[in-house]
Amino acid sequence: MSAQNKVIPRTLSGFMELLPTEQVMFNQMKEKIEKSYKRFGFLPLDTPVLELSEVLLAKAGGETEKQIYRFTKGETDLSMRFDLTVPLAKYVAQNYGTLSFPFRRYQIGKVYRGERPQKGRFREFYQADIDIIGDGELSILNDAEIPSIIYTTFKELGFENFTIHINNRKILNGFFESLQLVDESTDILRIIDKLEKVGIDNVKTELIELGIVETAILKILSFISITGNNEEKIMALEKLDINNSTFKTGLLELKEVAKNIKLFGVPENNFTIDLTIARGLDYYTGTVYETFLNDYKQIGSVCSGGRYDNLADYYTDKPLPGVGISIGLTRLFYQLNELNLIKVDKQSISDVLVVSMSDDISDCLSVANVLRNNGINTEVYMSNKKLKNKFKYAEKLKIPYIAMIGEDEVKNGTISLKNLLTGEQQSVNVSEAIKILKM
Amino acid sequence: MSAQNKVIPRTLSGFMELLPTEQVMFNQMKEKIEKSYKRFGFLPLDTPVLELSEVLLAKAGGETEKQIYRFTKGETDLSMRFDLTVPLAKYVAQNYGTLSFPFRRYQIGKVYRGERPQKGRFREFYQADIDIIGDGELSILNDAEIPSIIYTTFKELGFENFTIHINNRKILNGFFESLQLVDESTDILRIIDKLEKVGIDNVKTELIELGIVETAILKILSFISITGNNEEKIMALEKLDINNSTFKTGLLELKEVAKNIKLFGVPENNFTIDLTIARGLDYYTGTVYETFLNDYKQIGSVCSGGRYDNLADYYTDKPLPGVGISIGLTRLFYQLNELNLIKVDKQSISDVLVVSMSDDISDCLSVANVLRNNGINTEVYMSNKKLKNKFKYAEKLKIPYIAMIGEDEVKNGTISLKNLLTGEQQSVNVSEAIKILKM
Repeated sequence: MSAQNKVIPRTLSGFMELLPTEQVMFNQMKEKIEKSYKRFGFLPLDTPVLELSEVLLAKAGGETEKQIYRFTKGETDLSMRFDLTVPLAKYVAQNYGTLSFPFRRYQIGKVYRGERPQKGRFREFYQADIDIIGDGELSILNDAEIPSIIYTTFKELGFENFTIHINNRKILNGFFESLQLVDESTDILRIIDKLEKVGIDNVKTELIELGIVETAILKILSFISITGNNEEKIMALEKLDINNSTFKTGLLELKEVAKNIKLFGVPENNFTIDLTIARGLDYYTGTVYETFLNDYKQIGSVCSGGRYDNLADYYTDKPLPGVGISIGLTRLFYQLNELNLIKVDKQSISDVLVVSMSDDISDCLSVANVLRNNGINTEVYMSNKKLKNKFKYAEKLKIPYIAMIGEDEVKNGTISLKNLLTGEQQSVNVSEAIKILKM
Repeated sequence: MSAQNKVIPRTLSGFMELLPTEQVMFNQMKEKIEKSYKRFGFLPLDTPVLELSEVLLAKAGGETEKQIYRFTKGETDLSMRFDLTVPLAKYVAQNYGTLSFPFRRYQIGKVYRGERPQKGRFREFYQADIDIIGDGELSILNDAEIPSIIYTTFKELGFENFTIHINNRKILNGFFESLQLVDESTDILRIIDKLEKVGIDNVKTELIELGIVETAILKILSFISITGNNEEKIMALEKLDINNSTFKTGLLELKEVAKNIKLFGVPENNFTIDLTIARGLDYYTGTVYETFLNDYKQIGSVCSGGRYDNLADYYTDKPLPGVGISIGLTRLFYQLNELNLIKVDKQSISDVLVVSMSDDISDCLSVANVLRNNGINTEVYMSNKKLKNKFKYAEKLKIPYIAMIGEDEVKNGTISLKNLLTGEQQSVNVSEAIKILKM
């Protein structure tokens, strides 16, 4: 094929494609999240990327629908999944008779949204979700378990200083009901959400512009100004003395969740009641969660979710309450990588590169077999290159050790094992090498 | 939402979606393959599912192109990947200056082909690929390493009685060149391929029908009738005394590969020279591989691949020779599952289900925390159900142990641990429980 006929190899914008050493880091993050989800007994699920548009878009509309990758093949109207929640709803409705409830599932997979591409925004991205679905009812204890899973996961990812913010949508809804501001609640929440960025005076100005009456504004401001530790916040909410049943139910739920979170082993430092978080508007109906890395608040919530009354009402009459969270893994990886915050256990796949210092590679191969059988990821450099090039190869892939085998080593039954980080080189036998490489 | 407005939840035909216990098995197979690929130092790669059609279909044509899921979004002509090789070619050409060669990568991901759906055929399916790409040249030793990776992988999957069949396309090509039957070679290979199914007489009849002359047919039949062990086959090939340089190169390569496979630790029992395998027609240029489970030959090759001269000539002038294999994981899982041949280490995600025998769940939660911190996947049953229901739940999910904690247990600092397989129940403290659950 001549040069002028070549197609320029390129990747779609908004689609993450990593270099090998970055991919190693990404996969370790993914594996740690998965390990942590499994530690709590969540079952794996792997739904198709493609679904019938009629099924996938049963409930979608507005902005979401515009972003869908939708097309026909033959007679079939198809869409690529845009989240992992709708496929879960489909799956649970479809397999209702077979599943065991509460159904605890995790799914880590790619989803697709044709958003305008911009720095740090992706059109193909991983979500890492867990949900617990009840059959008809689901104990509030599950709402309290979720923060312990978030806690374990972010500890596993190497973070200490993060806070899980919890709230309850019924408190917000009941509060706005009591002010007879239900219709305005969307706009009010949007304004409140900016509190930390713009300050209380600007929030007040915007509420006036929205046409909220003075008395209501004062109540809203006193509501969002509630501070203190979790117990103090609950006491302040009780003191508001709002005579609305939704509010009261929400407050009871929040108290119950806050009390139990501690039993689930989350330190007080790592969670807080935050009356300003709402998480979307239609979907969540009870507890809501957001998680912030306190030293890097600018990257936004790294893990969010909440409780919903009904997972799948567009597919089934069965009431299926649930609670779940999602980590936007691709975006999170991008942000942490930009900030140099990714903590990896291993920077390479191979634990050791075995290189021959003679023309005969057979001893390298048998040593490699022994190492592999002992659980050590072992690569043999097989191209006939200068030793310098072999070292360069190992360094570029961040392989921590080189095992050199030449005529002397074969004669003595040893390996010259060099630590590429410290530069230390020692002559060892195979079982000593195994010990060192397993450390 | 009223019943008549419901959308029927359903999954596209040809798209595998598993129940949780099957998904657990599937994931274990996937993890074992990945573990084995990493053991040989292959680097992970995760390319997008969507690519520009111009890029993805640079070389495709014919049947493949008809099967592509291709569509436009906005102005952009997009296609879903139909294999993992073209994305690899794109990636290597695109990142040529950055990658270290030989570039050893694995990728396990879903690919899409809109084939006519039939039993055991899927439109969305996992491929699990490894390839080793050289920069300009690639040692034949890599061809000999590949069978050791196949061997390790299928051992890891629990198989013993399987055989890796190897051949060399240059032998076939040179043989047909020497007979001046290059144009007919495609048809001849198709006929030869049926040898085991239809027998030698039918092969002969079909060759006559194809218009092959008697002398050539005799040579073809003696070629495909070569038997014996690997050394005997090589000797027989040498005895054919074919004066064709392609044939001679192929024979040298095959000898070199066969000799070295043993050094890479593959027992003689698990590989064989098989002069009848060809693996497609354009792509492979040297060594080719197929792998058969000897007790279940009807399911076809479970792992195939080969050597190619040039990975990415439609993207770049750089010669990039490579060798690789692919496991069609979705199809393999389906077939093994039908035959009840999947060997799993664990049938469940959770190692233990903790259930409370009183109204107070707090002790269950603190025990669960301790178990999890010791690496035990632990689930707490939180719904307020009868003990019978909790047992049913554990049995259905195949969780091996139930840990019961009631008032007596709290008083005595013990757990009543029941093995659901043996029915054995014992009263143990937490550290004893950890020991038992870790076994």
